[in-house]
Amino acid sequence: VRFINLNYQPVAWLGDRVRLLDQTRLPHEEVYLELTDYRDVASAIKELKVRGAPAIAIAGAYAVALGTRHVQAPSPSAFLEKLNGIISYVAATRPTARNLFAALERLKTVAAGDNSPDAITKSLAAEAIKIHREESAATARISRYGAGLIKAGWTVLTHCDTGPLAAPDYGTALGVIFKACQQGKNIEVLATETRPLLQGARLTMWELQKAGVPGTLIIDSAAGYFMKTGKVDCVITGSDRIAANGDTANKIGTYTLAVLARENNIPFYIAAPASTIDMSLKSGAQIPIEERDPSEVTGIQGVSLAPEGIAAANPAFDVTPHQYITAIVTDKGIVQKPYTTGLKALFREVPAQ
Amino acid sequence: VRFINLNYQPVAWLGDRVRLLDQTRLPHEEVYLELTDYRDVASAIKELKVRGAPAIAIAGAYAVALGTRHVQAPSPSAFLEKLNGIISYVAATRPTARNLFAALERLKTVAAGDNSPDAITKSLAAEAIKIHREESAATARISRYGAGLIKAGWTVLTHCDTGPLAAPDYGTALGVIFKACQQGKNIEVLATETRPLLQGARLTMWELQKAGVPGTLIIDSAAGYFMKTGKVDCVITGSDRIAANGDTANKIGTYTLAVLARENNIPFYIAAPASTIDMSLKSGAQIPIEERDPSEVTGIQGVSLAPEGIAAANPAFDVTPHQYITAIVTDKGIVQKPYTTGLKALFREVPAQ
Repeated sequence: VRFINLNYQPVAWLGDRVRLLDQTRLPHEEVYLELTDYRDVASAIKELKVRGAPAIAIAGAYAVALGTRHVQAPSPSAFLEKLNGIISYVAATRPTARNLFAALERLKTVAAGDNSPDAITKSLAAEAIKIHREESAATARISRYGAGLIKAGWTVLTHCDTGPLAAPDYGTALGVIFKACQQGKNIEVLATETRPLLQGARLTMWELQKAGVPGTLIIDSAAGYFMKTGKVDCVITGSDRIAANGDTANKIGTYTLAVLARENNIPFYIAAPASTIDMSLKSGAQIPIEERDPSEVTGIQGVSLAPEGIAAANPAFDVTPHQYITAIVTDKGIVQKPYTTGLKALFREVPAQ
Repeated sequence: VRFINLNYQPVAWLGDRVRLLDQTRLPHEEVYLELTDYRDVASAIKELKVRGAPAIAIAGAYAVALGTRHVQAPSPSAFLEKLNGIISYVAATRPTARNLFAALERLKTVAAGDNSPDAITKSLAAEAIKIHREESAATARISRYGAGLIKAGWTVLTHCDTGPLAAPDYGTALGVIFKACQQGKNIEVLATETRPLLQGARLTMWELQKAGVPGTLIIDSAAGYFMKTGKVDCVITGSDRIAANGDTANKIGTYTLAVLARENNIPFYIAAPASTIDMSLKSGAQIPIEERDPSEVTGIQGVSLAPEGIAAANPAFDVTPHQYITAIVTDKGIVQKPYTTGLKALFREVPAQ
């Protein structure tokens, strides 16, 4: 059993403020932000200072808890109206990840259960902390379930960043890898850089380095080369939203990896908490795909890469149809085909909170 | 019929020096280098100041012509020995593209046919100019043949840069697109940025902008998203080497595009001069793949993207198995499956020079 340092927190609640590790400054600077205005937390989510579907859900919940503390309202109904405004503001940050909306729904339910603004404010903070704890506990279970799929000596390819930065405390896909390493399995990681915002190069490589797990960085379009030349034993990624049929939205490029994996007979796994699953969507066609600013494509960190005035498109996610997915690892267990019944069973066995 | 400005030359022979448009400075600066030492031309090839399989062949041929002018040798055999040294030096720049080796073979044959160093020096310059003219003429034929495959209203996805910068005068894959536009077909281009060196973002977008052809830049890993959502009518790329069975080496990422195209029932075309075809190789498994410096992956234009001290891998090419290729467009005609007989027939019909 190997010690792996996962001793850092992307989001923390300090009672009257939210502390965020500014992930846009990584890997070169480790800067913590302490925010007292919920709008600043929302901006931080929009600007990817905090990212990863579970971390966004936690930060978003804390943003609401923070915002509620400062609401001045003449009546309980005026208070609730302002609270709903805060929730809508936070919900408008990023459209694709399901976990944020699941967290905000929970806060709405809690708010409806109390009467006085003071009681609601306290309950919301308590619920946000509970969401944080549950998401954290979920990553421990995901990593344990998932590690069973990973064999000693494997090279595992992953995309984007899915470590503790994205999903405290263990991570999702990267958590599975870390757990396999903790179990003493020697694992090598191939990490795609993940253009445009380079979460793989900046964050996954930082997390692997911190954990002491051997990793090699490759450009996104080299993944096929390494799969075809027999260098990859499995692919595992996180997810931002999973439809009831198993179709999975994740960072742009994930669909491509899934197609390449199937073409090369390599297992392709998704690792995500059950809060990522959206049983209200029949298929991935209904998942909204965030379009981000074209400047993320035409430049990198202030360096202009393309001629002035050209057009660029920047979809931030894609949908991997369920048939390409070997298994979905959740905190409630591993789901395999057929996903429609498997995912439904997940929610029957352990009722959602 | 539409006018398209292709009035720029990546390589020119000025009699006693070689002029190169420094492609590493594009798109922001248009800088021409005038080189008198063949080793500087070789360095320019290595550093991708001139790139694209046909342009490399032309620049390499001129480098030899240039180097030969300065050889001091006491005897014809000493002269030939030094000439062979120059050819080997130029050949050692980049291992994957076939066209350079084909050009150098032609120069060796020419050198063997003359006796005096003076005559050889003159013949080599004449042969290099002939190679340049033939490669240029080949692109005109490729673009004409290929344009027949492209329908009005199509969106064409392409990878890396294959315009006149890579293959004077028309380009290969991009030449096909330009020719279709000249024929009055309205075509939209989706250009992948082509990490790590961003030939798509920097060069294809510059060539499209100059030509007035509408293009949209996307990250490499978004190609699958656009294919799957029905936005791509065909994919066309260039090639650096084609084996006798049709297996095709091209810029890293091309294999991935071919797999995605087949998965989405989209035609996938290769456009390349016959000098790219290496009938001595039975399959793509024999094509050497250039591994470039990991710093191209860990940084972009001087900006460090990843933590210090991490490992990165940087294969510059991949091989697309022939079964994924709908057709190979050459200057000698369009070849379809089965490629083994089709490519052989190409060389029977029109004997190689």
